[in-house]
Amino acid sequence: MFIKIPPKLKPDTMRLVPLGGLGEVGRNMMTLEYKGKILVLDCGVLFPRDEEPGVDLILPDFSYLVDRLHNIEAVVISHGHEDHIGALPYLLEMRDDIPIIGSQFSLALIKNKLKQFNLKGNLKVVKEKQTYKAGDFSLEFISANHSIPDALCIYAKTSAGSVLFTGDIKLDQTPLDKRITDINHLAEISKKGVDLFLVDSTNAEVPGTIPTESSIAPSLDLIFHKAKGKIVVASFASHVHRVQQIIDTARDYGRKVCLVGFSMIKTMNLAAELGYLKIPKNTIVELNALDKFPDDKIVLMCTGSQGEPMAALSRISRGDHTKIKVKKNDTIIFASSLIPGNEKSISQVINDLTLLGVDVFHSKNANVHVSGHAAQTELLYLYNTVRPKNVLPVHGEPRHLAANSRLAGKAGIRSISSALNGAVIDLKNGYAKKTGQIKNDYIYVDGRAVGEIDEADLQTRKILASEGFITCSVVIDAKNKIIVADPEITVKGVAEDLSVFDEVKKSLIKEINSVLSQNVLETSKLSKVVRRTLGSFIFHKLKRSPVIVPIVNLIK
Amino acid sequence: MFIKIPPKLKPDTMRLVPLGGLGEVGRNMMTLEYKGKILVLDCGVLFPRDEEPGVDLILPDFSYLVDRLHNIEAVVISHGHEDHIGALPYLLEMRDDIPIIGSQFSLALIKNKLKQFNLKGNLKVVKEKQTYKAGDFSLEFISANHSIPDALCIYAKTSAGSVLFTGDIKLDQTPLDKRITDINHLAEISKKGVDLFLVDSTNAEVPGTIPTESSIAPSLDLIFHKAKGKIVVASFASHVHRVQQIIDTARDYGRKVCLVGFSMIKTMNLAAELGYLKIPKNTIVELNALDKFPDDKIVLMCTGSQGEPMAALSRISRGDHTKIKVKKNDTIIFASSLIPGNEKSISQVINDLTLLGVDVFHSKNANVHVSGHAAQTELLYLYNTVRPKNVLPVHGEPRHLAANSRLAGKAGIRSISSALNGAVIDLKNGYAKKTGQIKNDYIYVDGRAVGEIDEADLQTRKILASEGFITCSVVIDAKNKIIVADPEITVKGVAEDLSVFDEVKKSLIKEINSVLSQNVLETSKLSKVVRRTLGSFIFHKLKRSPVIVPIVNLIK
Repeated sequence: MFIKIPPKLKPDTMRLVPLGGLGEVGRNMMTLEYKGKILVLDCGVLFPRDEEPGVDLILPDFSYLVDRLHNIEAVVISHGHEDHIGALPYLLEMRDDIPIIGSQFSLALIKNKLKQFNLKGNLKVVKEKQTYKAGDFSLEFISANHSIPDALCIYAKTSAGSVLFTGDIKLDQTPLDKRITDINHLAEISKKGVDLFLVDSTNAEVPGTIPTESSIAPSLDLIFHKAKGKIVVASFASHVHRVQQIIDTARDYGRKVCLVGFSMIKTMNLAAELGYLKIPKNTIVELNALDKFPDDKIVLMCTGSQGEPMAALSRISRGDHTKIKVKKNDTIIFASSLIPGNEKSISQVINDLTLLGVDVFHSKNANVHVSGHAAQTELLYLYNTVRPKNVLPVHGEPRHLAANSRLAGKAGIRSISSALNGAVIDLKNGYAKKTGQIKNDYIYVDGRAVGEIDEADLQTRKILASEGFITCSVVIDAKNKIIVADPEITVKGVAEDLSVFDEVKKSLIKEINSVLSQNVLETSKLSKVVRRTLGSFIFHKLKRSPVIVPIVNLIK
Repeated sequence: MFIKIPPKLKPDTMRLVPLGGLGEVGRNMMTLEYKGKILVLDCGVLFPRDEEPGVDLILPDFSYLVDRLHNIEAVVISHGHEDHIGALPYLLEMRDDIPIIGSQFSLALIKNKLKQFNLKGNLKVVKEKQTYKAGDFSLEFISANHSIPDALCIYAKTSAGSVLFTGDIKLDQTPLDKRITDINHLAEISKKGVDLFLVDSTNAEVPGTIPTESSIAPSLDLIFHKAKGKIVVASFASHVHRVQQIIDTARDYGRKVCLVGFSMIKTMNLAAELGYLKIPKNTIVELNALDKFPDDKIVLMCTGSQGEPMAALSRISRGDHTKIKVKKNDTIIFASSLIPGNEKSISQVINDLTLLGVDVFHSKNANVHVSGHAAQTELLYLYNTVRPKNVLPVHGEPRHLAANSRLAGKAGIRSISSALNGAVIDLKNGYAKKTGQIKNDYIYVDGRAVGEIDEADLQTRKILASEGFITCSVVIDAKNKIIVADPEITVKGVAEDLSVFDEVKKSLIKEINSVLSQNVLETSKLSKVVRRTLGSFIFHKLKRSPVIVPIVNLIK
């Protein structure tokens, strides 16, 4: 990344810096700065990919904020998905009284999350049509439809300019809760003027429109109609409307619904409590009470739709779940998207379930899922409704951001196409442009460590995975300059018999003795001899390049 | 896998055992046995998945054949793709005079491959409509259309019964070479009688039909028409007809075509030599001569369509290719499928190219690829043409095999749905059934080692990747039973400062001394103490579970 120091911020300018989400799908976070004060939009996590073995979570790079935490006016949250709220605890651990502004449901989820970190949070509930003053930032909230209830678009205005942020958005015209993306309100906002429009790019490569959530009802109906045994449905623990559809269909077929898994139960209870989920009387049963009902009167609603190995569904597919077993005539529905990168794990679960004789339905063979993000035609509606002066595509890999830029171009709107994480974008007199580039790293959470591992560690891990490692321990009597115990070789993940190393042990002894005879006693130099001798042997003899760990023990 | 010993094979029975390909997409290999003699259908490799770090290739499990190599009558090859021919050298290394029967193009590719292993091969060219006698097996070959020229269906008959094998097949009615899957010939075979039909399951989950190869021509034409700079096309090195379409379109637009990469050049030269690829005069140029032509007169045809990091396209996307650079206004076409599991690597390449300002076309945003495998409607055509007595779905993961079984059911044909690799299927009096299950392992090729690493090694590698490792070396004076050098700790891929281990070093010394004071001097017992003390510390203190390698050096 080419670092370019931006100019000093003047009072006539609003500055935007994405700390995550522009270059990847996840860890969405944007800062707006005006007269030294900062407004943060969302604060999410990114889930690690295969290239990041052992990593639990990836955070936005907070380093831009670390010295200016007291200048943060507020964090404004568009909706309650992990990729928009998941990093909040890590930000609040640095300053725990930052006001967090969001809708009722978003804040309820945040409250639950913060509790796990022993944080309370300074939470401010707002709703659509409402305005709110956060220092010099005048905020206004617009109803947005997405795959979680109570999402908001955020309009932020200062005397230097105005920004409209879609959050995650779709234009479903018949959503279950009738709460559509408020185009009329967006038209009003358009009248007030939008200098810079930050737009969800997730589906910017997808032509046409996304079908309505209600469109999956007939498929569910047909599957339930034909199902002879248990039905197990997997979806995201936050997809309240998807769960609502399952509950409604279950009721129609006289089946009881059992919510499975901590996050599913917790979120749905919260949703029911706040009125976002309507549970008909006597529909829900506890897992422990399930054996009172015959298989054809049961629906299990669980997580694990992405093939996560420890989630309920994966354990069911391996026959590992202590309480839920499936067999021939049972039905499984993946009522969920297939997140790119999870194809193999999901396919593994589908294969395992197939081998158990279960009927498996998923988005590729049945209409049981619709996306939560606006596709091309819908994005064009948004562009033509809002008519902003500038567009900054957000939320996506470079290919998605580029596709969204092209779309804005088709609507005749100027867009900033080359801005990724850490780009400094200055908005002045209705014109936005990139004026700098700051450092932006992936911050890895790994066990208890936050930000302690880096790319080099991950590189080592990958070599360990593909090549294994070899250690060689040598004990040297420093006084007499002699080797007092034969080199001890240990290998892991290297596909060889230990006896192949007998040959190199002789060379090792010879090389070490030769160095010792020159009175060299530094551990670093002796280690180098071991590493070089061993490395050359392994490469030439075994055609491999494992991680080599020389251990030189000096006895004084 | 539950092993079940099959009954002794009688002269009235033909026995089939899949050694690979029934449970995965790849390493296709099936044995037919009659009166103690064996006919092998295909002998391919499987490419390793992420769960198999460091593995180069996966072979079918030959152990069923090892003691009976002299009984193999022949290997019959359906077509020249790696997943059908790639394991041949490993089989021939055990017995190099096994006759290999196949079409002209398949055998030409095999000949090239064997040369790399210093093998000659006992090759027997056959063609469609031809019959061939391999011991007691009467063979007949039927023209099949697929994404490589000269594919064959194989009909094998003994007095115990008859088997028809599709190989990989599609029913393109307007292929470039006009060589369609010969339905009329299949109708004749149907008349002769097919007891067991082995059917390609790759697209058994895909509804409808697969468009013809010719259908991508208009898209290519449009992309070429609009392209202002260089065009780079990525596809498989064996997809002769795809390359033909690129060459034809290039000629229409007055562009020169440069074949890039060893395998692309070698295969296309072979195809041209044998008449499968028609190269118009003065169309092909060498990479070294490219700078004589302006960008808008160039097409580069390369490999790397699956995001393979070392292939030409990936190197171009990273700016690493010494001879090929791309920039704004250049065009890249992925004229290829997206093989499940490669989504992330492909997306990485697309993102990198997008950041270079290149226009990227792929099967998701342009009609630049069609599949090479029959979809549901086409499979039903095959079932209704062949009308076999039994069906055994082959080539696929369990989900694909199950879907194909259901399709056979829709055509009113009995299918063997639960047979995976190692299943023993006996065919007698026109009835096929599973009578046993033999062991079937993945045979990993890793560097020079074939079959030396196993699941446990891969498990270790995965732990190494996600948790890293820690070594602890202790030097003990065996005579005086004392520790002579402080424990030496090394970590790799564990995200911690080494100073956190100061604490545990004290416990280590204490625990070891305590064991030494009981006169314990066995390395294994001392190692156990180190492992236990360190393991417990790391788990409780750091919440991690790295691979722990205790190294105890005893000085006598």
